[in-house]
Amino acid sequence: MEKMNSIAIQALGELIGTFILVLLGDGVCAGVNLTKSKANNAGWVAISFGWGFAVTMGIYTSAFLGPAHLNPAVTIGMAIAGKFPWSGVLLFIVAQMLGAFLGALLVWVHYLPHWKATKDKEMILGTFATGPAIRSYFANFMSEAIGTFVLVFSLLAFTRGQFTAGLNPVIVGILIIAIGLSLGGTTGYAINPARDLGPRLAHALLPIKNKGNSDWSYSWVPVLGPVIGGILGAGLFMILP
Amino acid sequence: MEKMNSIAIQALGELIGTFILVLLGDGVCAGVNLTKSKANNAGWVAISFGWGFAVTMGIYTSAFLGPAHLNPAVTIGMAIAGKFPWSGVLLFIVAQMLGAFLGALLVWVHYLPHWKATKDKEMILGTFATGPAIRSYFANFMSEAIGTFVLVFSLLAFTRGQFTAGLNPVIVGILIIAIGLSLGGTTGYAINPARDLGPRLAHALLPIKNKGNSDWSYSWVPVLGPVIGGILGAGLFMILP
Amino acid sequence: MEKMNSIAIQALGELIGTFILVLLGDGVCAGVNLTKSKANNAGWVAISFGWGFAVTMGIYTSAFLGPAHLNPAVTIGMAIAGKFPWSGVLLFIVAQMLGAFLGALLVWVHYLPHWKATKDKEMILGTFATGPAIRSYFANFMSEAIGTFVLVFSLLAFTRGQFTAGLNPVIVGILIIAIGLSLGGTTGYAINPARDLGPRLAHALLPIKNKGNSDWSYSWVPVLGPVIGGILGAGLFMILP
Amino acid sequence: MEKMNSIAIQALGELIGTFILVLLGDGVCAGVNLTKSKANNAGWVAISFGWGFAVTMGIYTSAFLGPAHLNPAVTIGMAIAGKFPWSGVLLFIVAQMLGAFLGALLVWVHYLPHWKATKDKEMILGTFATGPAIRSYFANFMSEAIGTFVLVFSLLAFTRGQFTAGLNPVIVGILIIAIGLSLGGTTGYAINPARDLGPRLAHALLPIKNKGNSDWSYSWVPVLGPVIGGILGAGLFMILP
Repeated sequence: MEKMNSIAIQALGELIGTFILVLLGDGVCAGVNLTKSKANNAGWVAISFGWGFAVTMGIYTSAFLGPAHLNPAVTIGMAIAGKFPWSGVLLFIVAQMLGAFLGALLVWVHYLPHWKATKDKEMILGTFATGPAIRSYFANFMSEAIGTFVLVFSLLAFTRGQFTAGLNPVIVGILIIAIGLSLGGTTGYAINPARDLGPRLAHALLPIKNKGNSDWSYSWVPVLGPVIGGILGAGLFMILP
Repeated sequence: MEKMNSIAIQALGELIGTFILVLLGDGVCAGVNLTKSKANNAGWVAISFGWGFAVTMGIYTSAFLGPAHLNPAVTIGMAIAGKFPWSGVLLFIVAQMLGAFLGALLVWVHYLPHWKATKDKEMILGTFATGPAIRSYFANFMSEAIGTFVLVFSLLAFTRGQFTAGLNPVIVGILIIAIGLSLGGTTGYAINPARDLGPRLAHALLPIKNKGNSDWSYSWVPVLGPVIGGILGAGLFMILP
Repeated sequence: MEKMNSIAIQALGELIGTFILVLLGDGVCAGVNLTKSKANNAGWVAISFGWGFAVTMGIYTSAFLGPAHLNPAVTIGMAIAGKFPWSGVLLFIVAQMLGAFLGALLVWVHYLPHWKATKDKEMILGTFATGPAIRSYFANFMSEAIGTFVLVFSLLAFTRGQFTAGLNPVIVGILIIAIGLSLGGTTGYAINPARDLGPRLAHALLPIKNKGNSDWSYSWVPVLGPVIGGILGAGLFMILP
Repeated sequence: MEKMNSIAIQALGELIGTFILVLLGDGVCAGVNLTKSKANNAGWVAISFGWGFAVTMGIYTSAFLGPAHLNPAVTIGMAIAGKFPWSGVLLFIVAQMLGAFLGALLVWVHYLPHWKATKDKEMILGTFATGPAIRSYFANFMSEAIGTFVLVFSLLAFTRGQFTAGLNPVIVGILIIAIGLSLGGTTGYAINPARDLGPRLAHALLPIKNKGNSDWSYSWVPVLGPVIGGILGAGLFMILP
């Protein structure tokens, strides 16, 4: 599919898909975190399935325009594995960041009366960006790298298996659910620089009621961890027979 | 499939499918809301999966008769996108409303001894129709519009992807689960005028024990919000390359 | 497939499939109900998915021998719809009952130390057989009939749609999950005479620690309700265009 | 696929797949068990889906190298059923054990700050290895045998059905979820000697904060039970018509 569309149209796909991904992904965080939401306290199963299906729908809504990476760590990993041209990487990352920012913006609109009702600043930031369960930059970085290692390695493994084309986005969604359930408890599994940085910027810029600071001191972890983990996942995959 | 059947038979499909959709959908609300139900307090994951699979089964039980929109906002969106004739829109909406009313009627029968056991009037109305977590007509309208925007835009995107035909109803079910988990916490995600108005009418007309008023002042939100959101979703899709 | 095997081999399939169905289905009830089980209090989502996937696996483990009805109400419904010979109905029902009894027997063995630890007689009976949330024979009968109506009508609708053959058991499993989440709260959704009567007999005959009576006065409801509901489902399907 | 690769490459697949299986599987146990994890107390539904999808991803990440047994009981069962050469069994088991050990090692790294925060030694051991809900070696052995009987019998039944090749790993994942929900409450369903013994060894050898003993007196149960259960499952399958 990606060969048929120009890199600009593919990047439009990245923007749309990441927009849907973050609208639904940060949406489930809002639903579970924010006071008076009907989904309040729905728990980690809701979070994991919500993010997984957010990715599924992000892919379905953009795969007809491009490769639907929706994640700078995936784009870089695919470039390393020779499955995406390096010349498109920067444009893709910009489109992903912009889509993520717009998705977070719409989450703010969607849950508009709930920000005022929510007194816990951490819950509000947690709706937009990830944060560590126990702050420890080295361990948190390792967690993000390990989660993204599994993500990129699995995505590349998918390309070597028999596959049912129309259901690929569902399989990727199950992969995200698996990572969320199993490896998400430590840092909230950004495993995607755009998913974290775009909404964190939205949190910083938007006039959200009751918001606190945007914890910029942590913000490099869910950017650098996923990039390094994705590179390792792609590297390991390439040395396999 | 829809080309082979007359518009009347297609409308019969809408009636049957929306009947199953609301029987199962309002059914899960009843199971979770009503006192002494074995599913009482099963939580938002149960609600989201219950509605998602209700839509899946609504489509399976009607797709051999027609296009299985089961939702006036989808019918209007498909007409705008040129995928359904405007001449069939009114008949479809009538059939969807009637099916939704009959589904709600059977939910009342199914849970017959539980209405008397349930003292909370809000819980009883919440079994039939949606309501806002925080009443704010503008924000609630936006929520319904955003949820239905995602619904119609995604459904149209599905038509451009590779797809595994027999599993389409499952993918649509996953879409409904995703919208429920991520965007349902604000208004209970009607995202379908028939799903809300038909059962609300049943609530008003049936001799349900312990029922209160049917909150007609809110009833325009889950009708107009989905229609506007569906139009925007179809419109955005049409300008894509 | 069923045309290639003799009716005796098909009936062996019913025995094996219903055995697996009840082993896993009553198994999840035991896991959630019995004291000290690691799945204790896992809730209605666990019950619904457990029964749904029990049916999925019951079908996978028997569909290479026969049609995998695993349910007298389905066998009768299929006979009414002309999709199964009346001459095989009695043998199938006997095989289903025997398989269900053996499945319940193995659940007793599997959870052996947990019966002594469980003091609540209702919880122990609830592991084997269904019971009403609110005892009302007319309403309970209606509930079982409505649930099985949806089951048989949907199964027949599946035969008219596009379908992905190897995944049919998963779709049927999703149907069972949907019925469980949405219509199971009133009576525990037997929707299958063999699933209820076989294990109830096992409960009566086995030397289960701390067991009470087997509530035979209720036992006709989950037999007659599903049979009548299945007949109505098949009948409605047959008058459709 | 397995015919095209040498037995050494196939064994590499077993190592990689079991590594991913245990990283995600023990990962979900860590997420639910360990203090301050965001997934803490997410419950049995999280555990069951986490392990099921761990198996799904273990298969996807190794099926292009070999048959993806990822389990000595499955390897032995397949050899008995004539679907795998006995000459490869020992190498496969060694690779599975090594993969499981490495997966557990990475779980330790991933959740590094959480071991210090967790005071309950049982919870820490439960992250790595299984243990009985009620200690009774005979009953616990029966539980592991019954669970693995269902596993191997079902896997063999899959080989006789129509199947959608690219989705096999998802169906196997659903099987694992079913066994977990329905039969996991007694012993935590090892149903796989490598999954239990490899991580138990990691627990014994690694310098994990707050760890207690590794309960070696129980360790034969999740080894011998699965092997015997798998043999019975393969044996029953072979006498079927």
